[in-house]
Amino acid sequence: MISQNQNVIQSDSLLSSPSSKAIDADSYFKKNTPPSNLNEITAKSAEFIATNTKLGRPVVLVTSGGTTVPLENNTVRFVDNFSAGTRGAISAEFFLKSGYSVIFLHRKHSLQPFNRKYATPELGFLDFLFISQEGTVKIKPQYEESLIHDIALFNDIISQNRLYMPTFITLSDYLFSLREITNLLNPLGPNAFFYLAAAVSDFFIPADKMVEHKIQSSEGELSLTMNQVPKFLKPLVNSWAPNSFVVSFKLETDPNLLEAKARLSLEKYGHQAVVANILHTRKNVVWIIKRDSMDKAEEIRLSDEEIKNHVEIEQYIIKKLIKIHNSFIQNSKSSS
Amino acid sequence: MISQNQNVIQSDSLLSSPSSKAIDADSYFKKNTPPSNLNEITAKSAEFIATNTKLGRPVVLVTSGGTTVPLENNTVRFVDNFSAGTRGAISAEFFLKSGYSVIFLHRKHSLQPFNRKYATPELGFLDFLFISQEGTVKIKPQYEESLIHDIALFNDIISQNRLYMPTFITLSDYLFSLREITNLLNPLGPNAFFYLAAAVSDFFIPADKMVEHKIQSSEGELSLTMNQVPKFLKPLVNSWAPNSFVVSFKLETDPNLLEAKARLSLEKYGHQAVVANILHTRKNVVWIIKRDSMDKAEEIRLSDEEIKNHVEIEQYIIKKLIKIHNSFIQNSKSSS
Repeated sequence: MISQNQNVIQSDSLLSSPSSKAIDADSYFKKNTPPSNLNEITAKSAEFIATNTKLGRPVVLVTSGGTTVPLENNTVRFVDNFSAGTRGAISAEFFLKSGYSVIFLHRKHSLQPFNRKYATPELGFLDFLFISQEGTVKIKPQYEESLIHDIALFNDIISQNRLYMPTFITLSDYLFSLREITNLLNPLGPNAFFYLAAAVSDFFIPADKMVEHKIQSSEGELSLTMNQVPKFLKPLVNSWAPNSFVVSFKLETDPNLLEAKARLSLEKYGHQAVVANILHTRKNVVWIIKRDSMDKAEEIRLSDEEIKNHVEIEQYIIKKLIKIHNSFIQNSKSSS
Repeated sequence: MISQNQNVIQSDSLLSSPSSKAIDADSYFKKNTPPSNLNEITAKSAEFIATNTKLGRPVVLVTSGGTTVPLENNTVRFVDNFSAGTRGAISAEFFLKSGYSVIFLHRKHSLQPFNRKYATPELGFLDFLFISQEGTVKIKPQYEESLIHDIALFNDIISQNRLYMPTFITLSDYLFSLREITNLLNPLGPNAFFYLAAAVSDFFIPADKMVEHKIQSSEGELSLTMNQVPKFLKPLVNSWAPNSFVVSFKLETDPNLLEAKARLSLEKYGHQAVVANILHTRKNVVWIIKRDSMDKAEEIRLSDEEIKNHVEIEQYIIKKLIKIHNSFIQNSKSSS
């Protein structure tokens, strides 16, 4: 039932030229409405970046969670991308522990750093608590040690203004916010780190083609034609923040495609590294593919022992990437 | 770009007859795979219903959250329905407070009764806690009173085995579980209460038409044709649990359609009541439309004062529906 037909070009197509398949980024922004809180996100990001840069702290933008593509203007239905935001939330923690300050641009209601440990389908907030004999609320003893550690760390980070967590829901919210934050990070040059872990939609329905009200099922089958989303990595790397350190993610389900697609992405956009992973093994193995070493993907794989002990692979990913980022900064200095 | 074309019938269509638009429920179950934990859900539901019925407690099935429709077998993308599960989670609380035992069949990661108050985008778990001077974890004083109340209530309910919370993600998970639980509630006759608040997909892609791997955006536009989901309310009301008390929900964005669609649903399926609401005002006003009073929808509307004080409209909905349920039980007795 799914067909991906290159030949079906709508007569009122938004395609920017007959030969290209997707509109360009500028046209996308012209045709879509920014989120209502964009000014707030921009102002707070600017302040956050200024404060942290003044104190000599490196700043990373971590994007996390899936973007939605509404099917109606009054949205009841939408196309979503699989992501609970686990990778992004854990990664943000390891950046923070490594001394980075973090703008955590994430899907509303997706997992947040630190808090993500305490809201699982199996254990809710109230499961951690009990009422003591004195009638006060207490933490169950088995959770106390880990919680004391996390609260201390979390409160330190918040009081030092090292974590800012703006949200998005739709693809369009995400792209407008990404562009603004990127423009603000651009002056940091090679020190700016982009860790683009969000699961961004590849297809969308242009706002001017969307129906106003909930689609009625009584009218039969539903046929949808969705346009390709412009590849925003291209302007990000080439014009919004051309001297920054940019890491993108590539998630596939077919292992045969993964490495080739990651390398193609580096060639097309010219950024520094891709973290490549397969849906069903993403928690235990990833490959880091760098632009300047096209010959070999670097594998990071948890051992059976580590998997048993719930070691989080993100700590190795972040450690490796920070090392690459530091070399990148050194190289940028020596070449300038 | 969205077209809903009644004329596009696929040559290899799954339509059960040339004149109908959707396959029937039986065909749906034959063509889809049950969730891997269906046996567990069935066994636990059976035990839950037996225990609670033996103790003379009424049992309600509350469904909550949106179902997903995967676009790929190895799912990266899916169509989702707008729902955080707020209505269902709050409603379950009021059922529990009114003496009902609750099977809360909900979308994984959607809001849960009681816990939902303590996991919002604004306030995460760690925001409620601090480390005291003695080095132990404590609840911030402003939250203690409400928490003591909720923990006591929650622990009571759990220890009395009055709440069972199975989950679903996909449309197919939901429908298989719904059918099993309905079969188990059927012997309760008019005492069985179905409160079907889940936002269930109207369209799906049949499993045998789905692509195996992540759809590649490099191949151009994406065209999707989705089939209508069978109307499961029909077999539920007419054959799975024909003597039960069934309440469905109708959410629209266009106020002009709402009442007519709710009444049409009662006529078509023959259940007892519809809770009708409009997307943008659903927290402040709903209409209850009963089958046996086709002349007038009953409006439940919060006052400005109540809205200011964060009164939850679900308490009025549940109170009203329990009253209707009790009359229904009386009528069923006197007519049998």
